[in-house]
Amino acid sequence: MKRVLITGGAGFIGANLARRLLADGHAVTVLDDFYTGQRANLEGLGVTLLERDVREPIPGEYDWIFNLACPASPPHYQLDPLFTLTTSIDGIRRVLELAGRCGARVLHASTSEVYGDPLVHPQPETYWGHVNTLGIRSCYDEGKRAAEAFALEYRRACGVDVRLVRIFNTYGPFMDPQDGRVVSNFILQALRGEPITLYGDGAQTRSFQFVDDLVAGFLAYIQADPARLEAFFAPKGCAIPVLNMGNPGEFTVRQLAEEVLRQIPESRSALAARPLPGDDPKRRKPDVSWAKACLGWEPRIPLRDGLAKTIAYFRGLA
Amino acid sequence: MKRVLITGGAGFIGANLARRLLADGHAVTVLDDFYTGQRANLEGLGVTLLERDVREPIPGEYDWIFNLACPASPPHYQLDPLFTLTTSIDGIRRVLELAGRCGARVLHASTSEVYGDPLVHPQPETYWGHVNTLGIRSCYDEGKRAAEAFALEYRRACGVDVRLVRIFNTYGPFMDPQDGRVVSNFILQALRGEPITLYGDGAQTRSFQFVDDLVAGFLAYIQADPARLEAFFAPKGCAIPVLNMGNPGEFTVRQLAEEVLRQIPESRSALAARPLPGDDPKRRKPDVSWAKACLGWEPRIPLRDGLAKTIAYFRGLA
Repeated sequence: MKRVLITGGAGFIGANLARRLLADGHAVTVLDDFYTGQRANLEGLGVTLLERDVREPIPGEYDWIFNLACPASPPHYQLDPLFTLTTSIDGIRRVLELAGRCGARVLHASTSEVYGDPLVHPQPETYWGHVNTLGIRSCYDEGKRAAEAFALEYRRACGVDVRLVRIFNTYGPFMDPQDGRVVSNFILQALRGEPITLYGDGAQTRSFQFVDDLVAGFLAYIQADPARLEAFFAPKGCAIPVLNMGNPGEFTVRQLAEEVLRQIPESRSALAARPLPGDDPKRRKPDVSWAKACLGWEPRIPLRDGLAKTIAYFRGLA
Repeated sequence: MKRVLITGGAGFIGANLARRLLADGHAVTVLDDFYTGQRANLEGLGVTLLERDVREPIPGEYDWIFNLACPASPPHYQLDPLFTLTTSIDGIRRVLELAGRCGARVLHASTSEVYGDPLVHPQPETYWGHVNTLGIRSCYDEGKRAAEAFALEYRRACGVDVRLVRIFNTYGPFMDPQDGRVVSNFILQALRGEPITLYGDGAQTRSFQFVDDLVAGFLAYIQADPARLEAFFAPKGCAIPVLNMGNPGEFTVRQLAEEVLRQIPESRSALAARPLPGDDPKRRKPDVSWAKACLGWEPRIPLRDGLAKTIAYFRGLA
């Protein structure tokens, strides 16, 4: 039994992770300020709740910390860009200070957004990325990039055992319906009989990872022996473990829309084109060969199965 | 007469800027913690000194703020990477908070390092850069990139009139002899009769801007009418003014070494090859067409003239 802290644990990924950790018999504390997290995601679970801002010093003693706290979708993170930047940057500093104090192991949720609009395809962990410091996504992208640099330097200076995971597009139960994510948008639009909005021509591709795959990867990663990680990463010139987690299966958003409509046969929705927003990455797909080699992890759940569970969840909400 | 604050004003660029501002009749306050700045650089100048850490709230009322506080050379910024990251990130936050409180106009010293090891040559302001979040330079590069994002978002959210300048390799009097910069290294080595260390084969190019050119650019930029800047940048899709300042004249470090030796004819030094350090950018050269079009500014001082003044300064120190 581990004492586990999940910052941002009332969000989409946190809610799934908390359930898995509780099922495995761990003691779970969730830190959340409910800026984007939902109280309903934790209802009746039996987690300890710390209702507070991750940018403030964090009390307690933990064995594992999952740092998930940050608005992560454009409509949320663009609402208050300074909040996003400081949550990303000050949040990881508070988490790393806590870990330094209590000796916790940290898994920090970085993001495929550190790759920006990539010029290399698929993206391995060694790709440096292509990010605009002054664009409409930079409060998120640059905040997350700086958070990686903080993790690296705390690890080197203070010996904190922090590991980075760059999360690619993920979907599943407990997604925020207001989030503007393509999967939840399409499902909700299909269930409501509204037009399914394709940005641009719908030919931009995305990788879609079912959240259970990601949570399985988190568990394998946090439990990995530090010496084994060191042996894997040091020869690669990495001073900190960093792994992509995502599903390399590539689909166009148009294909996604068509699969959603296939699984909601009663829908009266049709596809509708909309202009592409600024700085929207055209194409992104993870190279997960390091995660496979290092942890034996790879995504296992096909899009149609994950979509079926996600559609069932959203039907239950309605 | 303007009330001017220079953070990091005891450093190389600050010392030159302070002299120019005083000569122009302004009241100059220098904030410096002397982490890398030198007291001797301010001796007898008549500036008001705030000896403090830029990461703490800053008192006072100013018309102009030049935010130069940050270790800026690899031997300094790699000494304590967490100090570098936080000085860059928390420093600009404190400066922008101060400016929001007192209505000051801010010129923030960004850097060509936001372009990293560039894939585009020369680098225009629209180039997004090529930076490793997890390399040995990332505490500086990512700290400076995040600082740009903070400047952008404070400007948008709080209306702070902050302008970004990306400074390319600059040299001149008051350079720190301990700094590890190629110009000061070569001059000192030549004056001492030590081997002149070329990293790699010496064929990597650098642009060398004489500091008087940069200071002239700062003055033109800080005085530029906000409406004129808006008219220049808005059509370019820039939500914040951003200008490169550097000298596009390209020299190999080997050519620099040879010119230094030509100007120090008594030197007994010879060139000596050393291995290239990690993540060292191979080639960097500014595109300054925006600064020319926007401010009528361009560098005017040729390398041989600037070197002569710099060598005279270092001879005076010896």
